[in-house]
Amino acid sequence: MKKRNKKITAGILVIGNEILSGRTQDKNIAFISNWLNLNCGITVSEVRIIPDVEKIIIKNIRLLSKEFDYVFTTGGIGPTHDDITAISIAKAFKIKYGYHKEAYVILKNYYGKEQFNDGRKKMAKMPISAKLIYNPSSAAPGFVTKNVLSLPGVPSILNSMIENCKKYLIRGSKIHSKTINLFTVESNISKQLEHIQKKYKKFVDIGSYPFFRLGKIGVSIVSRSTSKKQLNYVSKDLIKVIKHKKIKILNI
Amino acid sequence: MKKRNKKITAGILVIGNEILSGRTQDKNIAFISNWLNLNCGITVSEVRIIPDVEKIIIKNIRLLSKEFDYVFTTGGIGPTHDDITAISIAKAFKIKYGYHKEAYVILKNYYGKEQFNDGRKKMAKMPISAKLIYNPSSAAPGFVTKNVLSLPGVPSILNSMIENCKKYLIRGSKIHSKTINLFTVESNISKQLEHIQKKYKKFVDIGSYPFFRLGKIGVSIVSRSTSKKQLNYVSKDLIKVIKHKKIKILNI
Repeated sequence: MKKRNKKITAGILVIGNEILSGRTQDKNIAFISNWLNLNCGITVSEVRIIPDVEKIIIKNIRLLSKEFDYVFTTGGIGPTHDDITAISIAKAFKIKYGYHKEAYVILKNYYGKEQFNDGRKKMAKMPISAKLIYNPSSAAPGFVTKNVLSLPGVPSILNSMIENCKKYLIRGSKIHSKTINLFTVESNISKQLEHIQKKYKKFVDIGSYPFFRLGKIGVSIVSRSTSKKQLNYVSKDLIKVIKHKKIKILNI
Repeated sequence: MKKRNKKITAGILVIGNEILSGRTQDKNIAFISNWLNLNCGITVSEVRIIPDVEKIIIKNIRLLSKEFDYVFTTGGIGPTHDDITAISIAKAFKIKYGYHKEAYVILKNYYGKEQFNDGRKKMAKMPISAKLIYNPSSAAPGFVTKNVLSLPGVPSILNSMIENCKKYLIRGSKIHSKTINLFTVESNISKQLEHIQKKYKKFVDIGSYPFFRLGKIGVSIVSRSTSKKQLNYVSKDLIKVIKHKKIKILNI
């Protein structure tokens, strides 16, 4: 994996009526975002969830692939009629759609000649010049078209494939984070937080998130930065405020 | 709640670095989408998750409020520096941002004069002409600006407020759905599904979703339509195929 010392961004495009309708709870967004962040120093900058409609997929692929260094799509690469991610991406980039030679061989070997029916053959259809993302769970590969990486929607299968995306990504600067959990309410520290955020605004992003735990109200203060040194400065300033206000720290 | 016999659409705009970074698993998208669908006959057509950055929020509010009948925002209406949803919406629509008289009174009464500090006062700041969405959990109201309904990010609080959105929405045609769960693989029925989808494409959307249950692989076939009659036709056709193929039905 090559490394570039700058901010590298990704968009995630979730393709699927079942997520939009609320029938299925998405689990892939948080998984991909965490993985990119921890393993590749890549920041997810936008997520879109869209229906299985070809012209909407095409429009979003074109837009997001221009806007971000990488785009990850999830869903719509199975054997049924509503799986139209591959053909839509081929159309978005004006690349020929058809049987991908290597994918065809992989699937034929996996299912055996007799079980390799039309539905399964469809999973070998994609932009013919795509590179493959191997699938150790169920053979049907994901694929890379320009800067767009296409993965399946089933979380367990997606999770098993994610490491195989690494070779197609350039690593960015790692984003470090520090969390301080406090038993207090946000409004008790909002003024001081704003002051500290202003002081370090060039280097550190500070977020404040209320939570409920052990029957008490608390706040998680999350600081994120590519610089560990700047994060430590922020932590010191935060702890000063916390001590001064006599707030109970749950953990750091 | 008024009713209009046509498709009414909504977009959801999730505002929050904590969701984008994967730190927090979103639970609001599925909840809002299900609620709109079941209670209001409103279809969520697109979801975007974006960071706490003013110009990005403004751009998306303008775009989505034009594209859909309603936009729901979640997150960014608390007391801290990273809560910038209200000011961004005010700027997007060029409406004055300041203390909302009714919201100010609600919050002052809730906290009492002594506890009503600057952070808490901030939660009364919004587009001054907004209408309020009352909050039975923690007082701080959501608000409606043109066709944009702004809710908090904490799921338990959002859930407690959702019924109070109803009076601002016009009901669309209810979307019915039928699910048939089968012990089979998608590729076994993909050809027949495609055929049935084509036959009813004007009235019914058919989706196919693999699942793993009791150690077996299965498929959920979900049909959705505003017409119960058409749904029944589809079910009959599906069951014909299932019987012909001798596939075991898990439940309907």
